[in-house]
Amino acid sequence: MNVRVSQALPALEPSPRAATSARMRTLALGIVGPGRVGGALLEQLRASRERLKRTHRLDLQLRAVIDSRHMWLDCDDDALNGRHGGAQIWRPATLADLGPYLQQSHAHAVIVDCSASEEVVRHYADWFTAGIHVVTPNKLAESGPLERWHALRETASHSGAQWLYETTVGAGLPVIKTLRELIDTGDHLTSIEGMLSGTLAWLLDQFDGQRAFSDLVRDAIVAGYAEPDPRLDLGGMDVARKLVILAREAGLTLSLDDVEVESLVPAELADVDAETFMHKLAQLDAPMTRRLAQASARNGVLRYVARLSAEGHARVALEVVPRSHPLANARLTDNMVVFSTRRYCDNPLVVQGPGAGPEVTAAGVFADVLRVAQQVAA
Amino acid sequence: MNVRVSQALPALEPSPRAATSARMRTLALGIVGPGRVGGALLEQLRASRERLKRTHRLDLQLRAVIDSRHMWLDCDDDALNGRHGGAQIWRPATLADLGPYLQQSHAHAVIVDCSASEEVVRHYADWFTAGIHVVTPNKLAESGPLERWHALRETASHSGAQWLYETTVGAGLPVIKTLRELIDTGDHLTSIEGMLSGTLAWLLDQFDGQRAFSDLVRDAIVAGYAEPDPRLDLGGMDVARKLVILAREAGLTLSLDDVEVESLVPAELADVDAETFMHKLAQLDAPMTRRLAQASARNGVLRYVARLSAEGHARVALEVVPRSHPLANARLTDNMVVFSTRRYCDNPLVVQGPGAGPEVTAAGVFADVLRVAQQVAA
Repeated sequence: MNVRVSQALPALEPSPRAATSARMRTLALGIVGPGRVGGALLEQLRASRERLKRTHRLDLQLRAVIDSRHMWLDCDDDALNGRHGGAQIWRPATLADLGPYLQQSHAHAVIVDCSASEEVVRHYADWFTAGIHVVTPNKLAESGPLERWHALRETASHSGAQWLYETTVGAGLPVIKTLRELIDTGDHLTSIEGMLSGTLAWLLDQFDGQRAFSDLVRDAIVAGYAEPDPRLDLGGMDVARKLVILAREAGLTLSLDDVEVESLVPAELADVDAETFMHKLAQLDAPMTRRLAQASARNGVLRYVARLSAEGHARVALEVVPRSHPLANARLTDNMVVFSTRRYCDNPLVVQGPGAGPEVTAAGVFADVLRVAQQVAA
Repeated sequence: MNVRVSQALPALEPSPRAATSARMRTLALGIVGPGRVGGALLEQLRASRERLKRTHRLDLQLRAVIDSRHMWLDCDDDALNGRHGGAQIWRPATLADLGPYLQQSHAHAVIVDCSASEEVVRHYADWFTAGIHVVTPNKLAESGPLERWHALRETASHSGAQWLYETTVGAGLPVIKTLRELIDTGDHLTSIEGMLSGTLAWLLDQFDGQRAFSDLVRDAIVAGYAEPDPRLDLGGMDVARKLVILAREAGLTLSLDDVEVESLVPAELADVDAETFMHKLAQLDAPMTRRLAQASARNGVLRYVARLSAEGHARVALEVVPRSHPLANARLTDNMVVFSTRRYCDNPLVVQGPGAGPEVTAAGVFADVLRVAQQVAA
């Protein structure tokens, strides 16, 4: 059953059938979850496609897009080649069909998981077994159960499939690749400290006592900085997941349970439904105002800081940071990651910048796709 | 004529003759210029070799080391296999023999140019033509004559040879690869501003009027932060070269002549011999003290700043920077590079950290070697 729907996605460029030059590398791409990040990625891929053929001899062929209900396959649009924008043919989503379909082309296949879904993660093992590369900003597998993580690594390594997830921490900022290079070249981590949540960075940068903390949270939701249920950010679990990802990258086999997490959500609001939570949001104000007063009394600022030691102690918590400290200088939704190592001991290596947003996240995913392309043979 | 010399280099690990597993990748390495950076690299390679075989299935075989007078080839040490440290057999240096020797092993060959020599650069074309990869912190080719640079790029691209030079700017900091990913994924540069000289960063961070600028320069030489003839740093040409490299990476075909350079060396001292210069170093003090007073009057600090605009305007100069500006926060020998782009527009992407020193530079070179390994077939 093929359905033709007027598409809300960015228009997809049909794959060309023209023969590519002998030295052209081809990747067959499937994109799962064409939401804000996936949509931005589709735009970036389309805008860059001809340039990459010319300058990188690389042909990124978009062959499938799948969301939770629909699936677009380029074969369905054969009759429409040459069309710009407009309607596309969609069929019901079948995640299990995606890998085999991409592999029909005999090019290296890359699945870009832009979902935040456990259901998609459950397919990784099959994809890796088939040698399909996975690029993703989805944190669930990288920070999930240690046993599954080990098994997925092993499967990918065995089949030669790449698994790249730079954008799970700091979006487009060079965080994970920087850490990996330090480790790969034999450096030894002393500590990582950082601000890993754009949402919390923005809230704490804005929170100066003039306005209630709960009002700023509402502003953040409206501005798209925070999730509609802001507990995902305020509870610290998102930051804890990122710290687990960094820890594992550094060779420490940590799990989410090992991270000491200070939640900004009062215990009695942790399990209520979202509507009730938003209704009682003002309960955050008194404790946050008290914390701000403590920070001011010490001439510091409040920051939500993630810390990892070489011994594997991991903690995410609200801290008072001196005004002269680099973490106090982060502005707006800036993320900041401070690597101290045996080689970077006098001064740390610091990466700073916007660590969230569809465009920069999509660009980081795109860069991972390009890295897959560099690492597979022509 | 073989000579046996007691070696001042770190002891070189002999290449194993044992068969490697089927899936092991091998790179044959030749290192040119085993000075401070080259020496640190040899240490790092040796310390990482067994680990990389195990974790990366990568065998980095050191096959040759060459300085301006001597050359060590692993074949000469055949009889010495199993020896640890101690004497090694050296023969007179013949740079032209290096490429053919490395290629005898039928592995991918990588020449690491840790020299600062034009003579070595003159061999790049032959190496690229032969498909030999070059990894280097040597700025002379990347910032040299535009025509030669174009020709070398073309030759390398044609033969599939990699040419990696991350450490020419910011040593081990992820600067060039970050810029390249921004461009490759279709972002557009608005500006780059940065502090690209660890020497000048240190001098200007220390210079608070308590001690004469010339005294600090002498300290910097003793500490190894500045060259014995500090005009290489103070004249700004080293920073200008780095800015040319960044500009070319961003697609702007700039040459050194196109960079507006403010030298901190008085014109009458620009061409005297090094001894005379050091004798008259105090002539720097009056103008620098005047500049410091101007900065203080404006409640700012002095920084030597490199700036590049999207239109290709390039300038390196002493500037007064407000104390609240990120560039004012750099400490010790910190480099800092601030990328503003179409996507990183509200807040820039910032990389900061020590941008000089043998260990971090060697680690950056090492990371480039690992990138070559990832990008060549098994």
